[in-house]
Amino acid sequence: MTASIASSSPIKRGRPGYDQDSVLSIAVEVFNKHGYDATSMGKLAENLGISKSAIYHHVPSKGDLLRLALDEALVPLEAIAEDERASVGTAEERLKFFLRSTIRVLVKRQQYVTLLLRLRGNTEIERDALQRRRAVDRRVSDLVVEAQREGSLRNDIDPRTTTRLLFGTINSLVEWFREDGNVTAEQVEEHAITMMFDGLHKTDR
Amino acid sequence: MTASIASSSPIKRGRPGYDQDSVLSIAVEVFNKHGYDATSMGKLAENLGISKSAIYHHVPSKGDLLRLALDEALVPLEAIAEDERASVGTAEERLKFFLRSTIRVLVKRQQYVTLLLRLRGNTEIERDALQRRRAVDRRVSDLVVEAQREGSLRNDIDPRTTTRLLFGTINSLVEWFREDGNVTAEQVEEHAITMMFDGLHKTDR
Repeated sequence: MTASIASSSPIKRGRPGYDQDSVLSIAVEVFNKHGYDATSMGKLAENLGISKSAIYHHVPSKGDLLRLALDEALVPLEAIAEDERASVGTAEERLKFFLRSTIRVLVKRQQYVTLLLRLRGNTEIERDALQRRRAVDRRVSDLVVEAQREGSLRNDIDPRTTTRLLFGTINSLVEWFREDGNVTAEQVEEHAITMMFDGLHKTDR
Repeated sequence: MTASIASSSPIKRGRPGYDQDSVLSIAVEVFNKHGYDATSMGKLAENLGISKSAIYHHVPSKGDLLRLALDEALVPLEAIAEDERASVGTAEERLKFFLRSTIRVLVKRQQYVTLLLRLRGNTEIERDALQRRRAVDRRVSDLVVEAQREGSLRNDIDPRTTTRLLFGTINSLVEWFREDGNVTAEQVEEHAITMMFDGLHKTDR
């Protein structure tokens, strides 16, 4: 689930049994289960089965763990805009590319995106992450405005509400999608796009 | 925002400045802001501006506050099925009645539903509430199956995924809907139903 962390990462290697990825991956699970505020370094150590000082060998503080975990979600979300397909075609095509790519990140980085979506903004690190998330969201809301203008999206729903309904639908995937469930990631992506753009009504279109 | 609590409630009246509703309403905000696990009775007392023992005058334990707060969301959600309109008409009509009624509860009891949706199931009270929520959800998923069978809903998306996409869309409202925002509760209800059933594509239907 976790990707490699940039070499500037403060997490060090060297403890047998744990590397940066596994510390991060367990930490994010504990944060999601109990909430970031309620998770002490002691509770983390317990879940990792190591001492508190052994965690400090990997990472200087709980805040650093949070920042690294949030990067696991934010970096790939921010990368979507860099893809060539994010800037070619109609606004509708670009919007769908963004939504499909976002769904893929949600599914691949489920735990990290869950952490991001549940942030309450109580600390500086949380507020920074929320700001980056808003910048990503803004790209989508700009495309919604453009798609309504070009006439491909209905305009009896204002663009802001449209954007929120789109994000509401796709963000909810992190709450229920299971890799081993009855639908694949590809099917979920297809189904979500179908509902959002064509609706659930059976039609002869 | 809060409704009156049944007279069997363990919250007592009598403290000047605070009644059961306001204690509950502030408690739910603090739970949502910091997470239930991370909220001590001390932190609650601080937010209420009263002593810990004054809270115990209102309610025997933090768990009781949680249970009462969850009832504020669950009782009206459970009441939807008792309405006559929940059992007349086509499956599609009944499904839409459920979804519209659910949206109304989400909007009117936003803080309480937020608390319900964020439950992690770490305690018995949380697990009980999650079970009641699942029973409510099951009514909707049964209606989705029926509506697909009667031919009003597309059946290229399996009923389970359809149900989850529907709940994902409407549950997300608690995260972003603001009573004083640019759209009214009625508009949001209308817009969500339109997207879910007819889709965002501009068509000549």
